[in-house]
Amino acid sequence: MATPFPLPAPMRRALELARAAQAADEVPIGAVVTRNGVIIGEGENRNRRDCDPTAHAEMVAMRAAAARLHDFRLMGCDLWVTLEPCAMCAGAISHARIARLYYGAADPKGGAIEQGPRLFMQPQCLHRPEVYAGLAEAEASALLRDFFAARR
Amino acid sequence: MATPFPLPAPMRRALELARAAQAADEVPIGAVVTRNGVIIGEGENRNRRDCDPTAHAEMVAMRAAAARLHDFRLMGCDLWVTLEPCAMCAGAISHARIARLYYGAADPKGGAIEQGPRLFMQPQCLHRPEVYAGLAEAEASALLRDFFAARR
Repeated sequence: MATPFPLPAPMRRALELARAAQAADEVPIGAVVTRNGVIIGEGENRNRRDCDPTAHAEMVAMRAAAARLHDFRLMGCDLWVTLEPCAMCAGAISHARIARLYYGAADPKGGAIEQGPRLFMQPQCLHRPEVYAGLAEAEASALLRDFFAARR
Repeated sequence: MATPFPLPAPMRRALELARAAQAADEVPIGAVVTRNGVIIGEGENRNRRDCDPTAHAEMVAMRAAAARLHDFRLMGCDLWVTLEPCAMCAGAISHARIARLYYGAADPKGGAIEQGPRLFMQPQCLHRPEVYAGLAEAEASALLRDFFAARR
């Protein structure tokens, strides 16, 4: 289903980054961090290129934003990502104090927000962002479906 | 309670790294990755120094080991860390395919292995390491207790 309003610019950029990851033969997921609507960090999946098990799009984007702000917390910043974050990324979102999380497609296999451990619902969770799901869901999931179909 | 056998060398090194973090005014946690008993990656908490919300000891150690092996997975490698990993680090341990996880003190506030989301027990979890807890528990928790007591 198409998003019933013009897609916000940060999510459009996250989709571009997902396509760039695909072109580099990485899982097509993209992410950006914004502050006051301005992009201050970008990331795409880089596991294979960087030989880094932690290099998911969200992690790359948050690390870039934190380096730019010279702060290990991203207070008041928002994260936009094409797929529901996994437990690793959800944990990092909490550590970074991300204010709002916007994501595209749900991930029944690896997602940790609305399924599996539902990390932000755990009583132990110290910081929960506001969560907005389903933006650009169709485009984001088509990218992933095509990527994995081509590898079979 | 003291560990009732000589502490394995990787955990001794993780404790040294925790003390180095403390000397740098970071939360005193240290970690190493071993392969066939040889240390191939080390890390200590570097959040503040590196302006990086993801720079927990485990993440730093796994990234270093993966870079050294030129592989985004650490198949057959073990992780030794002074404190029970959080959800972010537990997710990364799973992504990296760590074979065995050895940790010191349990972390009732932020741990994700034996409490909270118990990440490796989730049906969604794709890779579970063998887990050995309680090594150097007394030393590891004393370091943390002294660190936080000194900040109050």
